[in-house]
Amino acid sequence: MDKFFNPSSVVVIGSSNSPFNLGATISNILHYLGYKGELYVVNSKGEDVHGSRGFKSVLDIPGEVDLAIILTPARVAPAVVRECGMKGIRHLVIETAEFSEAGEEGKRLQEEISACAREFGIRFLGPNCLGTLNAHNKFCCFFGIIPGMYDEVFDRPGAISYVIQSGGVGALIIDSFRKDITNVNKMVSIGNKEDVDEADLIDYFNGDNTEVICLYLENVKNGRKLLETAKRIRKPVLVYKVGRTGEGSKAAMSHTAGMANNDVIFESACSQAGIVRLKSISELYTLPKMFTGMPLMKGKRVAVFTNSGAFGGITADLIVESGLEMASFSEETKERLRATAKLFNVSNPVDLGPTLGKQTFIDIWDAILSSDRVDGLLAVPNVWQKVVVEAICELEDICRKYDKPAAIYIPNAIERILAIRTEFNLPIFESPEEATRALTVSHQHYRSLGKKVGEALPV
Amino acid sequence: MDKFFNPSSVVVIGSSNSPFNLGATISNILHYLGYKGELYVVNSKGEDVHGSRGFKSVLDIPGEVDLAIILTPARVAPAVVRECGMKGIRHLVIETAEFSEAGEEGKRLQEEISACAREFGIRFLGPNCLGTLNAHNKFCCFFGIIPGMYDEVFDRPGAISYVIQSGGVGALIIDSFRKDITNVNKMVSIGNKEDVDEADLIDYFNGDNTEVICLYLENVKNGRKLLETAKRIRKPVLVYKVGRTGEGSKAAMSHTAGMANNDVIFESACSQAGIVRLKSISELYTLPKMFTGMPLMKGKRVAVFTNSGAFGGITADLIVESGLEMASFSEETKERLRATAKLFNVSNPVDLGPTLGKQTFIDIWDAILSSDRVDGLLAVPNVWQKVVVEAICELEDICRKYDKPAAIYIPNAIERILAIRTEFNLPIFESPEEATRALTVSHQHYRSLGKKVGEALPV
Repeated sequence: MDKFFNPSSVVVIGSSNSPFNLGATISNILHYLGYKGELYVVNSKGEDVHGSRGFKSVLDIPGEVDLAIILTPARVAPAVVRECGMKGIRHLVIETAEFSEAGEEGKRLQEEISACAREFGIRFLGPNCLGTLNAHNKFCCFFGIIPGMYDEVFDRPGAISYVIQSGGVGALIIDSFRKDITNVNKMVSIGNKEDVDEADLIDYFNGDNTEVICLYLENVKNGRKLLETAKRIRKPVLVYKVGRTGEGSKAAMSHTAGMANNDVIFESACSQAGIVRLKSISELYTLPKMFTGMPLMKGKRVAVFTNSGAFGGITADLIVESGLEMASFSEETKERLRATAKLFNVSNPVDLGPTLGKQTFIDIWDAILSSDRVDGLLAVPNVWQKVVVEAICELEDICRKYDKPAAIYIPNAIERILAIRTEFNLPIFESPEEATRALTVSHQHYRSLGKKVGEALPV
Repeated sequence: MDKFFNPSSVVVIGSSNSPFNLGATISNILHYLGYKGELYVVNSKGEDVHGSRGFKSVLDIPGEVDLAIILTPARVAPAVVRECGMKGIRHLVIETAEFSEAGEEGKRLQEEISACAREFGIRFLGPNCLGTLNAHNKFCCFFGIIPGMYDEVFDRPGAISYVIQSGGVGALIIDSFRKDITNVNKMVSIGNKEDVDEADLIDYFNGDNTEVICLYLENVKNGRKLLETAKRIRKPVLVYKVGRTGEGSKAAMSHTAGMANNDVIFESACSQAGIVRLKSISELYTLPKMFTGMPLMKGKRVAVFTNSGAFGGITADLIVESGLEMASFSEETKERLRATAKLFNVSNPVDLGPTLGKQTFIDIWDAILSSDRVDGLLAVPNVWQKVVVEAICELEDICRKYDKPAAIYIPNAIERILAIRTEFNLPIFESPEEATRALTVSHQHYRSLGKKVGEALPV
């Protein structure tokens, strides 16, 4: 599977100098990214493209080829796949569309490709996909990428790997990470997933440097395979699935040729396999950061801290509604809290009045997280003064000290949140709902892990 | 009630030149905003503050006073209220805290104030509140506002009026409107609402230039009054209420001294009175724009448009899950759609391939909105080219032509959404969930209106 992300030599079949040629955008982006391996192109004239040597057929290429990227019209794709097989290429990315998502003829072509691939022992992505992106080694075979568009992913690679069934969703994820503290590790678009599917990729991401695995799925073809694979995985697996309703399923079908799935069965499979189901597209890029720096939440008891009174009540509601519990402090904890500063409330939610001391925040958070009646912290500090941000910068250390997570939300306009998050590299969520959800999901994953290792984990 | 928002003369009682004096921040912000009326201060030394003439007692002020703003310690507040009564002042904003939210003694003081006010026929806001902000005439008696902080509200007043029980939530709303197309008209913080409450203010906002009334409530003291008032109102009333759970209610109690409310009863009252209950704090500032420019949604049938395939399925799920329906197009509509451009899908959701023509978008939206099988549009255009934004700029006109709304979401990172929204003054929502919700809420309000006028409105 690694050849899809780290090929030593690549051919782009269907890359030419014609105007609007999509294959040429791939040659171009690979050049731009400084791809170090051999890069060939194949087109009807056998012409060079963007400095890559051109051939009329893969069979004419002198050296070995690890990966072929195919962007020819659908009708010639079966012949191209056969030539790749004869050339000894064992990994293909078939980006061409107009296969099973487009009707009977496309379906027949897709089956033909599949049969041919089996004959040669070829593994392939697609058809009707974008292929792969590997931020760490600056490899990308997505078509249509303009040089510069995704610089930030490649300059600041992250820990989250994605399997997506839509380029549009991939672009939204990459765009959104510009203002976040984590980023994409690898991303793969599987399109109609005739061969390689989400389960194969989860398996692969389980063995590489990925920390969180996220999936955007429009359908599941082999539910049992996904279930059995996910059961073995220890890394968090987060899934947003379209087609929860009949109408959604129908719409997805015209996009990536899925089948109507029974969502109740999928839900139950996720629950068995410890897969976290996401509730919105944005959770695909906002929630993973809860797993990259913070300890897991081992119980349900949440302490709330705020210096903006209303958010105590707001988050208490959200915590209870999401199935977590408001922690009940011991007298000892309350006594420690009283000693820190003038607090409006020393019971949970802790409500701090105006203070200028960074250490006050730290003392309060230490008192809360050290309590054996608390499993995690929902922190809602209004950052009206710089000392508050400076205090938040030390919160992760306190969390690690007590092996408990904090989810942070600052009750400020979104552009302020984005600015502070990126400037200070803090895992700040964008709403109280999102922060509460992050704690919920952290705990859900912790419980799944417990089931997977077959014993109760320490609480 | 208008005197709270448009007073001809004001006294700030408890405004002095002492360091950290909160009353002085009010004198200061009123000067900064260029308050045109008479502005006096009262303090123990009788000293002038920020150029406003100072007295030792309101009784010494030579002229009439419309509104007194009180920031003295709680224990002297009853005597101050009495003096105001004797002076003939009939409108007070009691911003001082430490009343019923702080225990028995505070509760007694609050009752004393209340009795005294009744004796003189005084109406008052608070105690434990911020008072009022009127963006249109640049009046603001919130304490703690630094000059410049809220310039955008006063420079670009809007159509949404707020009743809030928390200054923190008010600040979040004002901050968030910096990057939106609508803005605050009036905002009033009611704190412990011993006298003037949310119902009084809804009534007042029903008669002024407000277009949408939004409430953030931590408790409801007089449910029947709220219900009866809301029933009379034709403007949309949107409410976020804390205390939906026992824990949330308990937390709110320490903030603004409410009582535990039964949320089931509140829910049923809202439904009877046509009040829209909001699901998140952010809906307080994101949803109102659906009511300021777009026609109401008269039925449940939604058409989806996208040029980014995945979002067809994503939104179809959301529409069905929110209780709306995916519209089913007639053959005639499909024929019109086919004539516009190469579409990946002419059934609902409409999926447009790459196109460079602004007119294509307009033709498609016209075909959709003119259909008598469609009640509203959920538009998810990826704005990868400037022509798309230019097309969106004409969408509101098409909506008005057919008297049907569109909710717009662009599948881009949030900072891009904010930038396009403000630059082109477009009602763009921040997520597909929010856009779907906007249509739902629009239809909910339309149905409530129908019940209120006692007959079915045209569908």
